[in-house]
Amino acid sequence: MQLSPSLTALIEALRCLPGIGPKSAQRIAFHLLERDRSGGTQLGDSLLKAMQVIGHCESCRTFSEAPLCDICLSVKRQDSRLLCIVESPTDVLAIEQTGQYQGLYFVLMGHLSPLDGIGPKEIGLDVLDEKLSKGNIDEVILATNPTVEGEATAHYIAELCQKYNVDASRIAHGMPVGGELDLVDGMTLMHAFSGRRSLS
Amino acid sequence: MQLSPSLTALIEALRCLPGIGPKSAQRIAFHLLERDRSGGTQLGDSLLKAMQVIGHCESCRTFSEAPLCDICLSVKRQDSRLLCIVESPTDVLAIEQTGQYQGLYFVLMGHLSPLDGIGPKEIGLDVLDEKLSKGNIDEVILATNPTVEGEATAHYIAELCQKYNVDASRIAHGMPVGGELDLVDGMTLMHAFSGRRSLS
Ligand SMILES: [Zn+2]
Ligand SMILES: [Zn+2]
Repeated sequence: MQLSPSLTALIEALRCLPGIGPKSAQRIAFHLLERDRSGGTQLGDSLLKAMQVIGHCESCRTFSEAPLCDICLSVKRQDSRLLCIVESPTDVLAIEQTGQYQGLYFVLMGHLSPLDGIGPKEIGLDVLDEKLSKGNIDEVILATNPTVEGEATAHYIAELCQKYNVDASRIAHGMPVGGELDLVDGMTLMHAFSGRRSLS
Repeated sequence: MQLSPSLTALIEALRCLPGIGPKSAQRIAFHLLERDRSGGTQLGDSLLKAMQVIGHCESCRTFSEAPLCDICLSVKRQDSRLLCIVESPTDVLAIEQTGQYQGLYFVLMGHLSPLDGIGPKEIGLDVLDEKLSKGNIDEVILATNPTVEGEATAHYIAELCQKYNVDASRIAHGMPVGGELDLVDGMTLMHAFSGRRSLS
């Protein structure tokens, strides 16, 4: 039995969703057709709209529909001299959810990965260079991921900061709060030891 | 931090997918925007197309883009005098995948559920009545689900068949092949006992 062309195309297209295999894609397609056509249509519209209108903030590179994002436009923040550098917009979201950080961001949209052809320019370091050259930033917080690539990217940016006499700091790595020592990976444990602080 | 309107709308719309909560919806939206915009656009197009062009076969009510579905149009089947009645198009798919059934189908798109306002007409039993009245069907196989509603629906249709002197049979319920007796639910076990066949 051959499924109809539009149904086959829909099942195929659903596989672009992370974690959706052929079986789940089929289940989702039939679910929408049988029980939620208006939801399916709305999702179709929202996808086309979002993929079309959501670009990147000209200043910090996070997702934005306007030339500048809400954070860069925020009156409370625009004079901040603190710049937090992260790999992706979801990192901005995670940091904002803590409610503790009041500075600006710069989103790399990735990390240095020379073997994949991702050099400084691909992660916007030319834009960052220009930003730092203006002298409006006192400290850069390097919040890239604690991976080999994230560390390499952080070190590269730290050198850029030195060029403009901007302080650069790396976020602390160690035990997650509430974590158990014997369940944490060795790299994290090593960081937790080397980053130890005196209690006296 | 406020997400941009189109991003918020996309995350909201993704929740129409079965099993996708707010966290997963956000993860999917960012994944598509960061890494697969062409996939997202294609999915948007496919959804709109499918929701618009996929209707129901005029003869068997399964999903079809044309007035009649491939099965109803099949030369090998159109003279079949055997009609299998199922609740949903996915049931047709499951039966077709066995490759053993060569008759026609009728898809109820649900089951009788008077409390939800789903009566005979809502599941196409007026169409089925007319189909049976023409005298082209010798036997109806009732393959609705083995649930309270599925059984009630099967019994209702069996009576309709009696009116036109059409044989009606119910698919067998019992132990799934390869299943373990102590892991199967009581209702299935009961069916397995009452449907036992003599081996002598
Ligand atoms: Zn911005
Ligand atoms: Zn049909």
